[in-house]
Amino acid sequence: LTRCGSAYPLPRLNLTLTGAMYCLLKLAPLFLAVAVCNGWLFGDFVGKQKEQDEISLWPLPQKFQSSAVAFKLSPASFQIVHAKQSSAGPSCGLLENAFRRYELYSPLFTFEPVLCYKRLVYEDYYGVNNINKTDISDFPRFAHRGILLDSSRHFLPLKVILANLEAMAMNKFNVFHWHIVDDQSFPYMSRTFPELSQKGAYHPFTHVYTPSDVKMVIEFARMRGIRVIPEFDTPGHTESWGNGQLDLLTPCYSGSSPSGTFGPVNPILNSSYDFMTQFFKEISTVFPDAYIHLGGDEVDFRCWESNPDIQKFMAQQGFGTDYSKLESFYIQRLLDIVAATKKGYMVWQEVFDNGVKLKDDTVVEVWMGNKMEEELQNVTRAGFTTILSAPWYLDYISYGQDWQHYYKVEPLSFPGTDAQKKLVIGGEACLWGEYVDATNLTPRLWPRASAVAERLWSDKSVTDVGNAYNRLVQHRCRMVKRGIPAEPLFVGHCRQEYKGL
Amino acid sequence: LTRCGSAYPLPRLNLTLTGAMYCLLKLAPLFLAVAVCNGWLFGDFVGKQKEQDEISLWPLPQKFQSSAVAFKLSPASFQIVHAKQSSAGPSCGLLENAFRRYELYSPLFTFEPVLCYKRLVYEDYYGVNNINKTDISDFPRFAHRGILLDSSRHFLPLKVILANLEAMAMNKFNVFHWHIVDDQSFPYMSRTFPELSQKGAYHPFTHVYTPSDVKMVIEFARMRGIRVIPEFDTPGHTESWGNGQLDLLTPCYSGSSPSGTFGPVNPILNSSYDFMTQFFKEISTVFPDAYIHLGGDEVDFRCWESNPDIQKFMAQQGFGTDYSKLESFYIQRLLDIVAATKKGYMVWQEVFDNGVKLKDDTVVEVWMGNKMEEELQNVTRAGFTTILSAPWYLDYISYGQDWQHYYKVEPLSFPGTDAQKKLVIGGEACLWGEYVDATNLTPRLWPRASAVAERLWSDKSVTDVGNAYNRLVQHRCRMVKRGIPAEPLFVGHCRQEYKGL
Repeated sequence: LTRCGSAYPLPRLNLTLTGAMYCLLKLAPLFLAVAVCNGWLFGDFVGKQKEQDEISLWPLPQKFQSSAVAFKLSPASFQIVHAKQSSAGPSCGLLENAFRRYELYSPLFTFEPVLCYKRLVYEDYYGVNNINKTDISDFPRFAHRGILLDSSRHFLPLKVILANLEAMAMNKFNVFHWHIVDDQSFPYMSRTFPELSQKGAYHPFTHVYTPSDVKMVIEFARMRGIRVIPEFDTPGHTESWGNGQLDLLTPCYSGSSPSGTFGPVNPILNSSYDFMTQFFKEISTVFPDAYIHLGGDEVDFRCWESNPDIQKFMAQQGFGTDYSKLESFYIQRLLDIVAATKKGYMVWQEVFDNGVKLKDDTVVEVWMGNKMEEELQNVTRAGFTTILSAPWYLDYISYGQDWQHYYKVEPLSFPGTDAQKKLVIGGEACLWGEYVDATNLTPRLWPRASAVAERLWSDKSVTDVGNAYNRLVQHRCRMVKRGIPAEPLFVGHCRQEYKGL
Repeated sequence: LTRCGSAYPLPRLNLTLTGAMYCLLKLAPLFLAVAVCNGWLFGDFVGKQKEQDEISLWPLPQKFQSSAVAFKLSPASFQIVHAKQSSAGPSCGLLENAFRRYELYSPLFTFEPVLCYKRLVYEDYYGVNNINKTDISDFPRFAHRGILLDSSRHFLPLKVILANLEAMAMNKFNVFHWHIVDDQSFPYMSRTFPELSQKGAYHPFTHVYTPSDVKMVIEFARMRGIRVIPEFDTPGHTESWGNGQLDLLTPCYSGSSPSGTFGPVNPILNSSYDFMTQFFKEISTVFPDAYIHLGGDEVDFRCWESNPDIQKFMAQQGFGTDYSKLESFYIQRLLDIVAATKKGYMVWQEVFDNGVKLKDDTVVEVWMGNKMEEELQNVTRAGFTTILSAPWYLDYISYGQDWQHYYKVEPLSFPGTDAQKKLVIGGEACLWGEYVDATNLTPRLWPRASAVAERLWSDKSVTDVGNAYNRLVQHRCRMVKRGIPAEPLFVGHCRQEYKGL
């Protein structure tokens, strides 16, 4: 991976801090700066002048070595420069933007925000900024470190999405799984089928994502090393699609006549597949990521069962009364449609469970809490790449420090061969939208998702909850300082409390 | 109650809306306007032009009568005026401020915010604002409708407190129970003992409430018909007091020598009582309300038990090993000290349970969830005024719509005489601060506390959860529109989503 701007997977990083009277940060290879600078680095400082709150980093780097050799820093001459051996350079917009961003974080005449080294910099007795000579070698344990946000159960204003992308970057998350539409609303504004949002959004003008909005999300994410994987979940979870697309959904029957309600996508009409072909052709061009999430979870068969045309089709196909065969029939055709757009796809675990034939590069997302380990075994035994979200459904809340539960999860604890373990490429923290919107999403997500971030980034051996608590307390205050309303872990305070409301 | 500005108890209200071609709101008696205008009035409209979302009010008024007679409204001539029979007038600053406040809520050329009648005003087919002739008679079921916020476990910036007073007013809460200090920090800046906050606050400058801050909170609350009752909880929950007041706390012993840690207020030293005398003299002048909350909950006896001087004192007093007697000894002297300031006092239930002799006008707060009904019986049987907070500890969170549990509570369901029931003057929703600060307090409090608001305001017969849900969904959107990040009850949207972060 040598392209400037590629976010996935993250490469290894080697980084050296050296200095003279005025310290000069050297980054090598520099084209990785954005990726690593999404978080903070941890130094095991020797000097007694360091206080507990000056040495915390989140997520913990894989390897670092700090020496007692300290350099004094001068705001006037401190700068971020390209290392000689860097293959990137001033032409790399991604890096230039990152430089600017970290400059802007900086309060005048302090060093705080210089890239990720804030916690390496400390004030000495005379108020002079110091930095110790430090070597850091860092890389993520898992390549896929995602956050799922749901903009259908509640519309999420652009501002909220961008703020959470910022917070994701601070926690080294690199995938925004955008569960953009669902039963409740269809805020994605389609150029090909504008009626989907005109009739399916909560409001056709104020509760939609315009093409420009979507572009902004993608670009804002890209600048922070984050991929955007949109999910257009079918054939279930599609009630809102039916408002703007006639005959897409299955008419449910009450006895011998239509009840007026609708079920999953109608899998027996060619028009459904024609629609999906056009729709996903658009999606494949709007979203640059190599993957699209196609959903495929929780299909309710009752409506299909009630419909005489569906019944007839089942008989013709020899499906008997096994409606999961009909579901697979639909999904199979959909996957072929999406494959033709040259995109890879992710699916929820049911698609695998139902025996649908999947492309080799399919990513299966394991979300069901019961029999999670069994599922991981099965999916990886079949040779499929897997991501895990089951233990990290952050919409479920409870009193107290539930982040510890998320933190204690070991994604590779299931029985399996090394080859199987390697197929688990990461995980996602999911914040489904039933109970969250712009008013409460951000504090509910952070720092609870930070626990998942460290689990997916740091070494498997990083499991000390007490140590994690101490670092996370400070990490959440850093988020607060940057304007992210990350909620407290427990009693205490931040030097700078949240200034918003 | 005829004074302008008195907030407690709230009197009955009679209010008539009449109108000609241009409607004129008449308020009678007008000096009550502020009290009633903390919420919205509900009209059982006849006209088919009303949609569900136009007729919701929270909390539901005691009585209203709406007719089909509608008046058109003109922004140019619409005004709020003093009724002829009003005993108040333009000299009543409270009312003038309320008028101005509701004017400011008003977007240009709409009627939305005119006092509380927003939901009585609706657009007809031609976009003209209409209002139906409506008679409303309203009064609260319970006189004490409080919110407890805790500014010790986490410091709450002034902005957060003021925003929540605003939200309280919108929900007709009329008591801010300010649990201002506790073990973790002492943010109250005392003129008499400045070291209490200098050494006991999380930070002596940024995490304190200056005298000016306190005044602002009190005045902001007063303008909205809200009393401010400060709680200075002793003898337990006082760890932070010890930082700035030498010898106030009991030294704990490990074996025969002091361990270096401290326990509750030292009840055997005269200096403790001298301190309390001076301290509460200040408090009694800073806080104008007739009541001070003195706490008295959860006293941990282990430190007292370890201390040889305390042991000796226990023996001298003939307390044996019953440390609750020592606790009562302390509380008794404290109550006498506070009584001398001419203030009434509130206490947590343990003070009553331990048999401390209380002034007749003491308010006992029942907070323990187990044996709640038994406690209500006992306290009221003894003739004490009571408020209930046990079922409304909003710091305990769970997945789903827990507001319904708060809503279903009937405060007077305990067995007792009518005279006993009358002693229950209200209740409080408590949001203890272990897990909340400026980042998440407001959405966690609202609209969950709104359920308590209606229970304490509306008639006992108002218990339909489905109807409440429909109204509360809209009420929370009104709060969001006014800038309060009240979280969603469930899936859905607000016409205007929250604009903050």
